[in-house]
Amino acid sequence: MSMTIVLGVPGAGKSTVLSALKGKQGCALVNYGDLMFEIASKKKYVEHRDGLRKLPPATQKKVQAEAGDALAKMEGNVVLDTHCSIATPKGYLPGLPFSLLGKLQVTQLVLITAPIKDIVARRSADKTRARDAESEESLRQHHDVNVALLAVYAAFCGAPAKIIVNSQGNAEETKRALLSLFD
Amino acid sequence: MSMTIVLGVPGAGKSTVLSALKGKQGCALVNYGDLMFEIASKKKYVEHRDGLRKLPPATQKKVQAEAGDALAKMEGNVVLDTHCSIATPKGYLPGLPFSLLGKLQVTQLVLITAPIKDIVARRSADKTRARDAESEESLRQHHDVNVALLAVYAAFCGAPAKIIVNSQGNAEETKRALLSLFD
Amino acid sequence: MSMTIVLGVPGAGKSTVLSALKGKQGCALVNYGDLMFEIASKKKYVEHRDGLRKLPPATQKKVQAEAGDALAKMEGNVVLDTHCSIATPKGYLPGLPFSLLGKLQVTQLVLITAPIKDIVARRSADKTRARDAESEESLRQHHDVNVALLAVYAAFCGAPAKIIVNSQGNAEETKRALLSLFD
Repeated sequence: MSMTIVLGVPGAGKSTVLSALKGKQGCALVNYGDLMFEIASKKKYVEHRDGLRKLPPATQKKVQAEAGDALAKMEGNVVLDTHCSIATPKGYLPGLPFSLLGKLQVTQLVLITAPIKDIVARRSADKTRARDAESEESLRQHHDVNVALLAVYAAFCGAPAKIIVNSQGNAEETKRALLSLFD
Repeated sequence: MSMTIVLGVPGAGKSTVLSALKGKQGCALVNYGDLMFEIASKKKYVEHRDGLRKLPPATQKKVQAEAGDALAKMEGNVVLDTHCSIATPKGYLPGLPFSLLGKLQVTQLVLITAPIKDIVARRSADKTRARDAESEESLRQHHDVNVALLAVYAAFCGAPAKIIVNSQGNAEETKRALLSLFD
Repeated sequence: MSMTIVLGVPGAGKSTVLSALKGKQGCALVNYGDLMFEIASKKKYVEHRDGLRKLPPATQKKVQAEAGDALAKMEGNVVLDTHCSIATPKGYLPGLPFSLLGKLQVTQLVLITAPIKDIVARRSADKTRARDAESEESLRQHHDVNVALLAVYAAFCGAPAKIIVNSQGNAEETKRALLSLFD
């Protein structure tokens, strides 16, 4: 039994890299946003996934607490796909606050990142999602906060934190780097 | 009810920016150093505010614990003005250690920062306070530690952390950025 | 009574700098790796020090817990020599996870670091130890993670965190900087 948490900002290529784990024997891939939405929609808090962001903080915390309980009960090798932090109008909201981490037995942390220019290029190419425009300077700031958060999560859990740089054109190499953590 | 904590190094322009909140309906602005001094002077630990720094660590912790209890009891929208960390001869002392954060229900964290050259210029222009001279290199180091601490505080509290860069000549814009967090 | 924790990556010159404390009245210098090995070899978990790294995570945590208990019982001025984090194939493993820090009453944290080029030069000159080759880029990343971890540890303990840059040729100055923390 293990719990690996894979973190990354939009445009880092996390989904592409995580696709390497699909079908891997004994690996249960869980998307944290999906889990939150599932819980919140069952409770009739939201109808659409976009509604999650607009929930009052107290309700969000309640949904987050239930998501943590659900994750704690999962068996096998769970791979949780979530954000290191989300850039909101009120600032960077940590994806793994202590209240959530305290419920989990994390064995491995992974941050998928990429050179700033690659993230900018991928975001502007992605027309399917209305992604917030972040300047290079603010992406750099977000990156620094994410590395610091990764360190915080690692110290909390006593788990190793791997940073994988997913440069443009190196998706296969990045996938191998991720897979090697499961050897 | 909410608790916003505003952090910043001397020369970042925190006081100027915070002045935007003076008189704002329902906002109680609390200076952490003033609160510490009030408690310490009632207990006869110190006579002058400068004495706070010279208190033995055990006494400082006692005063800090009482300050935390006092803050925890405050009602309404409290805005706490304090340091992310203080540069002391023994290193960077965190302004919000876990022992203090554990007493508070923090809803928003804000770090007011500025380009290093602006901080240097403001400090050398400020003759009214005997501010410690920090080289550009050590200011850069202090900044990195502060961003990391901000991430720690955010993960502890599960609260968003906003970084506002108060560049020279942009005080009005910075004030608007701070005020927008209270909308 | 005090507990100072001195952290640093291989090649930062930590051992050289720490030699300044040898023989200092009332200072008990404890190497965390030695302590771990002592405990693990008594329990027959390992025969050689290299075996520590290869222990299953659960056994490592058991040894770490015992090391924490042993440290908590030590009296006088303890100086603990350990790593901020270790670069492993699975990522950066924090040297002071919360489970360990929670047992200690830390009064001072010190990170001995050095310019990246000096670390690279020292590592390539050191033929006695089979040190992992880290590229400049990955050393920079490791440094950033270590500074963030230092901030985490400081916030957890409420203790000051000093960063001492041990540039090539400045060992005596660095020693004095370390000694000044004990004044």
